[in-house]
Amino acid sequence: MMKEPFTPNELKIAVIGGGTGSFTLLSSLKEHTSRIAALVNMADDGGSTGQLRDELGVLPPGDIRQCLVALSRTPEIRDLFNYRFDEGTLKGHAFGNLFLTALEKMKGDFGSAVELAGSVLNIVGTVEPITLTNVHLAMENGDGSVTRGEFRIAEHSFDGHRPKMWLEPNAEANPMAIKAIEKADMVVIAPGNLYGSLAPALIVPGVGEALKRTKALTVYVSNLVTKPGQTDNFTVCDFADEIERLAGTDFLDAVLYNTEQPSQDLLEKYAKEGELSVRVDEKALRDAHYLAVGTNLLSRAVWKNTNATADPLAANRTLIRHDSDAVAAALMRLYDYARPQ
Amino acid sequence: MMKEPFTPNELKIAVIGGGTGSFTLLSSLKEHTSRIAALVNMADDGGSTGQLRDELGVLPPGDIRQCLVALSRTPEIRDLFNYRFDEGTLKGHAFGNLFLTALEKMKGDFGSAVELAGSVLNIVGTVEPITLTNVHLAMENGDGSVTRGEFRIAEHSFDGHRPKMWLEPNAEANPMAIKAIEKADMVVIAPGNLYGSLAPALIVPGVGEALKRTKALTVYVSNLVTKPGQTDNFTVCDFADEIERLAGTDFLDAVLYNTEQPSQDLLEKYAKEGELSVRVDEKALRDAHYLAVGTNLLSRAVWKNTNATADPLAANRTLIRHDSDAVAAALMRLYDYARPQ
Repeated sequence: MMKEPFTPNELKIAVIGGGTGSFTLLSSLKEHTSRIAALVNMADDGGSTGQLRDELGVLPPGDIRQCLVALSRTPEIRDLFNYRFDEGTLKGHAFGNLFLTALEKMKGDFGSAVELAGSVLNIVGTVEPITLTNVHLAMENGDGSVTRGEFRIAEHSFDGHRPKMWLEPNAEANPMAIKAIEKADMVVIAPGNLYGSLAPALIVPGVGEALKRTKALTVYVSNLVTKPGQTDNFTVCDFADEIERLAGTDFLDAVLYNTEQPSQDLLEKYAKEGELSVRVDEKALRDAHYLAVGTNLLSRAVWKNTNATADPLAANRTLIRHDSDAVAAALMRLYDYARPQ
Repeated sequence: MMKEPFTPNELKIAVIGGGTGSFTLLSSLKEHTSRIAALVNMADDGGSTGQLRDELGVLPPGDIRQCLVALSRTPEIRDLFNYRFDEGTLKGHAFGNLFLTALEKMKGDFGSAVELAGSVLNIVGTVEPITLTNVHLAMENGDGSVTRGEFRIAEHSFDGHRPKMWLEPNAEANPMAIKAIEKADMVVIAPGNLYGSLAPALIVPGVGEALKRTKALTVYVSNLVTKPGQTDNFTVCDFADEIERLAGTDFLDAVLYNTEQPSQDLLEKYAKEGELSVRVDEKALRDAHYLAVGTNLLSRAVWKNTNATADPLAANRTLIRHDSDAVAAALMRLYDYARPQ
């Protein structure tokens, strides 16, 4: 495999996530360094990904595909990977998912499949599944009952409960992902769906320990809005707390949060869906064991859905969004200021 | 797009075909020159290709895929392109067919799709659809009735009739294919299914004229065995005659044929299926308007089906095969001997 050229003083950054927040952040971070490792949640079981898992027994390609696309240097192949068939028996499948699925079936090994896909897409850095075990997400509800499957859990209402979550069967961490955390200069927990996208990565046995052990600056980029039924009334601190609880360790060195309010108009539109701006609890942040840094991270762009064919859901998604270039720049400044000595 | 590096005295070779005969010949010819243009029949409507045409209205990707694979320099991507899904709703689809289909849908243009696929596969030379019109093959039977569809026609019995064949709707030749014929030093009509693979390329309006007009040495590599119900008792001359009749012009400069008999054992096995060795009618060949060159072109290899997953039919296919390296070498010698002055 082709190795990435890099300048020796480029930062090694590992990004943990899955979901739009991490994809856009990866696109922006690649302008700052070529030494990126995207560590990806592997519990997705909805849509095209879910169907491929069910029918072919493969690992979930969807989030991996989007990270590969975010890090790709080849616009045409990138568009192809996100192309979604809209007719016939292929309907709903993103082409890149079929690409990864065919490679995995052919090679009998998802890790090699992702590596070869990365070379076809000519990506900056690497993409590492957080685990190569074929897992599904599970959680215990307040009444002791269990809900299974990321897609279901994403739609689930927790009623204020902070759930115990685990993967079935027991996941083994991908050694390449653990190594990326250990060797990084900075580890970023990307903003994203807390229980649907971040939890499945953080709860993989070994990941919390690596996050605690690493000499890297570990930073959580706080979400902008709450998710009804799951993170209602959450403050920045609440998000950070839950991330550490899920990882099983207080590993965070820093939390980066937004200080700019979206327009009243947007806030009202969101409020109708039960989604509210994440509150900044300044006192709690001052007292926290991590460094809390607030700045304007809000996208001012009218968010155009240029990708409607590739992702029919995107048309109706969040318009309160991070300016991922601003987040990447803030992370680089934060590292300069707070780097481990 | 990346242009092929080549040494100035390399031959420009255009190969007309579709089907196994042309794919293996392309693999071997690419060892002699990097200036190859594979001109591909576009009437296939069976299997995965047929389903994609029906469901998504795309041009037939199957033969194009196999030519791309034959000319690829990247073994891993080559294997991926030939990978065939064997379960679920994707069952039967060769991955490369989905690749070309997604690209065509995304770009709205099959020609650009093939070009981009060629660059991903890092191919030697170019692959050109013989037409970019979405066509189906049709033929008139002895009783005046019409049979439609390449897949059906391939299974059809002609009872000695030499059918009139045409494409529906009227095909327009791909200007890039015509140009490749005009600019070539040598044009090779690959061995293959006469009415199913060669005819749909030769009958495209403009192709015969270009074959007549070109200054290239035009060579037909004769088939080895007859096809029951279609080319029973055909001699080398009969094949050459039919090729010229279908192209509508006596364009052939040379015919290359095999002189070695397969083993009695193999011949008997084939005879049971109604497939006989193509007879060499020496007198007729001496009197023909083209140069006829016979040599040993027979593969001695025990033909192993390494590709059974990719193509389940291949397990039961012809074992009397050309040694494509021998054919390529013979073509190069023939060119040196008979090149147009």
